[in-house]
Amino acid sequence: MSLPLFAQVKKTIIPDLKGYVTLQCDFHIHTVFSDGTVWPTVRIDEAYREGLDAISITEHLEGRRYLQDFEKLSGLPINGISHHVSYELALPSAKERNIILIRGSEITRTMPPGHSNAIFLSNSNELANKPDYMDAFRAAKAQNAFFFWNHPGWLAQQPDTTLWFDEHTKLVEQGMMHGIEVVNGSYFPEAHRWCLEKKLTFIGNSDVHAPMPPFAPGQHRTMTLVFAKERTAEAIHEALVERRTAIYHGEYIIGEEKYLKELFENALEINVTKTGNTAQITLKNKSDLTFRLKSMGHDARLVYFRNTDIDPVIVLPQSTLTIPVRLNNGITGGDVNFSVENFMVQPNTGMKYTIRIN
Amino acid sequence: MSLPLFAQVKKTIIPDLKGYVTLQCDFHIHTVFSDGTVWPTVRIDEAYREGLDAISITEHLEGRRYLQDFEKLSGLPINGISHHVSYELALPSAKERNIILIRGSEITRTMPPGHSNAIFLSNSNELANKPDYMDAFRAAKAQNAFFFWNHPGWLAQQPDTTLWFDEHTKLVEQGMMHGIEVVNGSYFPEAHRWCLEKKLTFIGNSDVHAPMPPFAPGQHRTMTLVFAKERTAEAIHEALVERRTAIYHGEYIIGEEKYLKELFENALEINVTKTGNTAQITLKNKSDLTFRLKSMGHDARLVYFRNTDIDPVIVLPQSTLTIPVRLNNGITGGDVNFSVENFMVQPNTGMKYTIRIN
Amino acid sequence: MSLPLFAQVKKTIIPDLKGYVTLQCDFHIHTVFSDGTVWPTVRIDEAYREGLDAISITEHLEGRRYLQDFEKLSGLPINGISHHVSYELALPSAKERNIILIRGSEITRTMPPGHSNAIFLSNSNELANKPDYMDAFRAAKAQNAFFFWNHPGWLAQQPDTTLWFDEHTKLVEQGMMHGIEVVNGSYFPEAHRWCLEKKLTFIGNSDVHAPMPPFAPGQHRTMTLVFAKERTAEAIHEALVERRTAIYHGEYIIGEEKYLKELFENALEINVTKTGNTAQITLKNKSDLTFRLKSMGHDARLVYFRNTDIDPVIVLPQSTLTIPVRLNNGITGGDVNFSVENFMVQPNTGMKYTIRIN
Amino acid sequence: MSLPLFAQVKKTIIPDLKGYVTLQCDFHIHTVFSDGTVWPTVRIDEAYREGLDAISITEHLEGRRYLQDFEKLSGLPINGISHHVSYELALPSAKERNIILIRGSEITRTMPPGHSNAIFLSNSNELANKPDYMDAFRAAKAQNAFFFWNHPGWLAQQPDTTLWFDEHTKLVEQGMMHGIEVVNGSYFPEAHRWCLEKKLTFIGNSDVHAPMPPFAPGQHRTMTLVFAKERTAEAIHEALVERRTAIYHGEYIIGEEKYLKELFENALEINVTKTGNTAQITLKNKSDLTFRLKSMGHDARLVYFRNTDIDPVIVLPQSTLTIPVRLNNGITGGDVNFSVENFMVQPNTGMKYTIRIN
Repeated sequence: MSLPLFAQVKKTIIPDLKGYVTLQCDFHIHTVFSDGTVWPTVRIDEAYREGLDAISITEHLEGRRYLQDFEKLSGLPINGISHHVSYELALPSAKERNIILIRGSEITRTMPPGHSNAIFLSNSNELANKPDYMDAFRAAKAQNAFFFWNHPGWLAQQPDTTLWFDEHTKLVEQGMMHGIEVVNGSYFPEAHRWCLEKKLTFIGNSDVHAPMPPFAPGQHRTMTLVFAKERTAEAIHEALVERRTAIYHGEYIIGEEKYLKELFENALEINVTKTGNTAQITLKNKSDLTFRLKSMGHDARLVYFRNTDIDPVIVLPQSTLTIPVRLNNGITGGDVNFSVENFMVQPNTGMKYTIRIN
Repeated sequence: MSLPLFAQVKKTIIPDLKGYVTLQCDFHIHTVFSDGTVWPTVRIDEAYREGLDAISITEHLEGRRYLQDFEKLSGLPINGISHHVSYELALPSAKERNIILIRGSEITRTMPPGHSNAIFLSNSNELANKPDYMDAFRAAKAQNAFFFWNHPGWLAQQPDTTLWFDEHTKLVEQGMMHGIEVVNGSYFPEAHRWCLEKKLTFIGNSDVHAPMPPFAPGQHRTMTLVFAKERTAEAIHEALVERRTAIYHGEYIIGEEKYLKELFENALEINVTKTGNTAQITLKNKSDLTFRLKSMGHDARLVYFRNTDIDPVIVLPQSTLTIPVRLNNGITGGDVNFSVENFMVQPNTGMKYTIRIN
Repeated sequence: MSLPLFAQVKKTIIPDLKGYVTLQCDFHIHTVFSDGTVWPTVRIDEAYREGLDAISITEHLEGRRYLQDFEKLSGLPINGISHHVSYELALPSAKERNIILIRGSEITRTMPPGHSNAIFLSNSNELANKPDYMDAFRAAKAQNAFFFWNHPGWLAQQPDTTLWFDEHTKLVEQGMMHGIEVVNGSYFPEAHRWCLEKKLTFIGNSDVHAPMPPFAPGQHRTMTLVFAKERTAEAIHEALVERRTAIYHGEYIIGEEKYLKELFENALEINVTKTGNTAQITLKNKSDLTFRLKSMGHDARLVYFRNTDIDPVIVLPQSTLTIPVRLNNGITGGDVNFSVENFMVQPNTGMKYTIRIN
Repeated sequence: MSLPLFAQVKKTIIPDLKGYVTLQCDFHIHTVFSDGTVWPTVRIDEAYREGLDAISITEHLEGRRYLQDFEKLSGLPINGISHHVSYELALPSAKERNIILIRGSEITRTMPPGHSNAIFLSNSNELANKPDYMDAFRAAKAQNAFFFWNHPGWLAQQPDTTLWFDEHTKLVEQGMMHGIEVVNGSYFPEAHRWCLEKKLTFIGNSDVHAPMPPFAPGQHRTMTLVFAKERTAEAIHEALVERRTAIYHGEYIIGEEKYLKELFENALEINVTKTGNTAQITLKNKSDLTFRLKSMGHDARLVYFRNTDIDPVIVLPQSTLTIPVRLNNGITGGDVNFSVENFMVQPNTGMKYTIRIN
C-alpha cells in the first residue's frame, strides 16, 4: 500500500532568529493511552513526516478512555498501569528519527481551572489519582514542570465567553501557569490579550486525537515555534520559560511583535530600486511562510497598492513579489506603510511595517 | 498536446432565484483587437470551459495597441478598420457553443470619468473617434446601451482614494451610468456603497487581457451573476437595468441583501433536529459556493460555535455540515445568530442570518 | 484541529451489474491488536470517509506485536486475551455508520502456505495457538469460513518467483482456499493466472497497517468489488463463494472478462453518430473510473486514434469524450477495435472491445 | 485578475551533461499569424513561466488562417505581409526575458513529404509562395537551415501506418531532413526507430496552437532537451546538427542511450551500503525527473523489488528512495539489474541499468 503523492516528508522552512534556532514543536498530543486513536509510534512518524523538532505526548491523567474499553473486553486491570507507557513506546522511534520527545501529561479537570498541560515532567505517575487538582499541580511543580492552560475558550467548558477565573490568577502566582494555548483548534483572542498583559508564554498546539492526515503543500498542523539557544529539550524548556515563542496556525503567526518583526525580516529579502518617478520594492520570500499585506495610511504622494480589504497583496512561499510605488508631485521618497495582516501582534490585529524609500 | 487534468469543462453550480435563472456573465474582456493577447475565439473557448452563460468582448475604442504594433510591421493602415472585428470573429463559435455574446465597447478616457463600458450596442463604430467623451456616451445612449463605470478605484487613475466626481453624477443623471464595477481585480468598498446609495447595478468582471488560465476546482473568474427571466441577451439587459445582479469574486458574493439571502437559502437545505438538551442544525450545501460563518451576539443559553475571528465555520461546496447547539438552563429553543462573512451586503460587512430553534 | 480539504467523505462511483449491487470491500486490515498502529474504530472512520460497504479487520493470530510491547511495559498478561477484541471495539461504530463488519483472522505462517485470511468466522479464538497450520484451517472450515491466500508474491516469502506449492493444491482441494489476493500492495500476474485456471476468487485488499491517509480525488485504496445480491454480509459471502468479484487497484480493474465488460458498458454511455464520411463515437463516463484505450488492428479504411503506445486515449471520470472516425474509400461503417488497457482480463492484458459503426 | 496559485514561474530541474548545458527547447509553436490563437508575446510569457531556454515560432508558410479571417472582415490585403511579423513582435520580449528566439517556419504540404520545420532561417519570406515544395526546401537550405519532419504519424496524413516515403529518403540525402519529431502530441515508435537507424536528430515539440495552460507541479510541455556547449542560438544549432538531444514528454525521456544514461547518473546520487546480509541502495534524486523502475532477470540470490508489471518502483522528483536488497545463500554482492521504463532507448523499450553491490 503506497501513500499518495502528498505524503512526502516536508519541513516548513521558517527562518531562525539572531542567536536562536526556530524549533517547530507540538506540546499537546494524544494516543490510545488516553483518548487518541493511534499507537504512540504513529505520533513520531507524523512528526518526522512534517519535519517537527519536538513533541510531547500528553495523555489525560484522568480519563484513559481506550484503555477502559480494553479493560471491559479483556478483563485485565488497566487502571493501575503506569502513565509512562505511551512515552516509553514512542521513545525508541523518536531517538532513531532525531525528534525530541518531551514527557508530559494533561491534568484534566472541570472549569476552573479546566485542562492544563504539565511538560518536562520526570514522573507522570506522581500526578495521577489526586482528587484535588492542586495536588496534581504541586506534584508537577516539584518536578520543575512547565505549565500551560489548554484551550481556554473551549465551548464545552466556556459556553459563552472565554473567562479568566480567580483560580487562574492563583496558578500564575504560584508558578503553575506559564503559558496559554492561544490557539488550539481555533484562535482565542482573549488568551492572546492575557499572554500580552500577564507576560505568559504563547502556545499553540494541535491537540490531535485522530491520525494526523498528510498535509498538502502549504498546509501544516498548528504548532509552537520555539526560539531556542540550541536544538535540545533543555533549550526548549529555557525558551518556554523566557517566553521566546510564537504560534504558527494556518497562514497566521501570532506572538510578541519583536519576534514577529524579526521573523518577517529574516524571511524576506527586501530591496528598493528607483527609476525616475517610480520605485520598485522587491520582496524575496526565502521561507515557506505566506505574507498578506494590507494598505495603511500614508503620504498620498506615494502611490502603491490599495483596495486590499478582501484582496490583500500576497507574498507566496519561496516567491518573489515586486511592488511598484509611484512618486508623485516630485517627491523622491517616503514611507511605504502597510500591515502584515496574518502576523498578529495584538488580538485580531496585524503587525504594522514600514519600508522607507530614500 | 493535451491539457492537464484541471482543464476540464466545469460550470460552477449556483442556485436560481424564484422566477429567475442565475446567469454567469463577464462583461469586460479584451482580445488582440485592443490590448488583450488572444484571438477572439479563445474568449469563447474559455467561457465554454468555465460554463459561462454570457460574455461581452469590450475592446478599448481608444488604444488598439496590438493592431498598432501590427500596423508598424505590416504597413497596412489599421486605424480605419471596424470596431466590430472581434465580435464578428467570435460570433460563430459563440453560437455553436451556445454562449450569449453581447456587443460592447470600452470608452477609454482619463479620470474623470475614467473608463466605462457600454454594452448591448448595435454599432460600436459610432462611438469611436470622439474627442469629447460625452459624444461617445451620447452615441451609445442612442443605441440604448447599458453603461457601467469600470474599476473606479484603479490605482493609475485614483492614486490615493476612490473618488466620485461631478462628471459621474452627470452621467448617472443622464442615464449614462447604470452600474459600477464593484470588483475588477480587487474589491472597491466605496463603489459598493455608491451602488447601494445611488441605486446602481452591482457589476464584477474579469477585465482579462492575457489567456485565462484553467481553474482548479473551486476557483473561478470574477463574474456578474445576473438574475434573468430567461437565458437570452434581452433578459440579461432587462435584469441589468432592474439591478437584479450580484458579484461572485473568490469566495465572496456581493450585492443586495434580498438576493444574497435568497441565494443562501436556495443553496443550503437547513434542517434542525433536537434530542434532549441538544439541537443539531444541518446545512446541506447543494451548490459550489462556500459559506464562511462567524458567530454573533445571542442568548447565552444557546451554546454553539465561537472563536471564529480567524477560524470561521466553513460550509464547503457540495458538502453537509452539522452544527451542534446545546440548550442550557432548560430552554427549549432560541435564535442562532451568525454572519455569513463572505456574503457582503454592506461595504466589508457580511450578511446576518438567524436560524430559529423551536 | 480541522482536516485539510481533501479529507471529505467521498465514495467512488462504480456501476452496479444486472441483478447485483457493486459493493466496495477491503478484507485485509490490521489494528493495534496485531501489528497495525491505529485503534479499531479508526478503521471504521476511514471506511466511512471512503464510502466502503464492508471491511474485515483481520488481525494476525500469531504475532500481536503491539500487545506484546504493551505487556512488557504494563506487566499485564496479554497473551491470553481474546482475538475478538478489535472486532468488538469496532462493531458499535460500524453499526452506527452502516458499514458491514465481517469477523476474520489472518493465519500467519511461513511459506508454504504463507499467510491466509479466513473471514466470516464465528469464533477466531478457536483458530489460535495451533502449532500445525492445518488445525487452524480446519477450525475455520468448521465455521464455514471463506479463505484466501494473502500476497502470494510477497518478497519476504517468495524471494525470486511467485511459486505455487503442493500445500496450496491441498488447501484448494479441501475447500480451504477459495480465493487469492491478486493485488496486495502490488499486482501478482501469476496469481491472476491461477485465479483464472483454478477458478478461484479474485481478491484485492489494502493490508493497511498505518493510518490510511485521506485520498485526493481519483485516488483510493486497493479493494475488492463484490457483485452481491444485496448489501448484506450474507450476500457478500455468497458472492465471494460464487466468484462474483473484481479488483480495483489504482486505475486498474482486474477480473473475469464477463464482469469487466459489464462494468465497462454500465459505466459508459456509448453513442455513434455519422455525418458524411465521419462518424463520432461519444463515450459519456457516468462513473469515477478511468478508461485507458489503446488502438488495435482494424480495417485500414476506418481512421481513428493511433500512436497510443505511451499516450493512450483517456476517458476521465465523470467526463465525456468524443472520438472522430473517418470512413475512407466510401465505406459506411465497420468495427472500431481497441483495448481497454487498464481493464485486465488476462495477466498483463487489457480487455478487447469493439464498437460497431453501421 | 490574479492567476491561480499554480501559475508561478517554474523551471524543471534537469541535470547538465559533461561539457554541455541541458537546454529546454520547443521548436514548433504557432500564433495568430498562422493558425494559433495567441499574440506572439504570449509565447514568450509562457516560455518564461516554464523556464524554457529557447523557442522557435514556426508559422505555417501556407495557411495563415487567422490573417485570412481578418482580411475578410477588414478588407485589408493580408496576403502580402511579411512572414517575419510574429518573430519581430516577440523579439523584444524574448530579449528582455532572456529567452533565445530562433527564426523558423513550417513548410506545410500534403504527404509526402508532409509538414516540415526549417529553423535558424535568416529570411522566411524566401520560402513562401513556392508551388514546388523542393523550392521551399532549397531556399531554406541556402540559409543553412536545420530541418525536421513534423508529426510523421499524424492521423490526417498517415491514416493507417506511419510510413516512410521515397521523398523522405531524398530529403535526408540532400541535407534537408536532419531530424524527426518523435513526439508531437503523442509518441511515434516508427520515428524513434528511424532516428536510430538513419542517424537523425531526436526532436519533440508542443506544436501548441491554443494558449498553453499553466502547469501543475510535475507537468510540462513536450520539449527537446538540447545538450549544447553554451546557452546560445549558435550552440543549439551545433548541438542539433550533432544530434545531441533527447525528448522530454510526460514522464518519458526518449533518445540515444548514451545521453539517457548520463542524465540518469547525473540526476541520481546512488549509494550502496551493506549491513550483514542486507544491502541498501539509496537513490537520491536531485532533479525534477521521475524514474520508473521495473525488475529484470538477475541472480536469484539477490532479493529486491519484484511484481512491477503495473506497479513500478517510482523515484519521485527531489526525493530519496531506499531499496533494500537481501543477499541470500551467503553471497556478498552481485548485480542489481532493472530497467528504467520511462527512459526509452529503443522503440517502446526502457533503458537497462545495473547497480553492482560489491
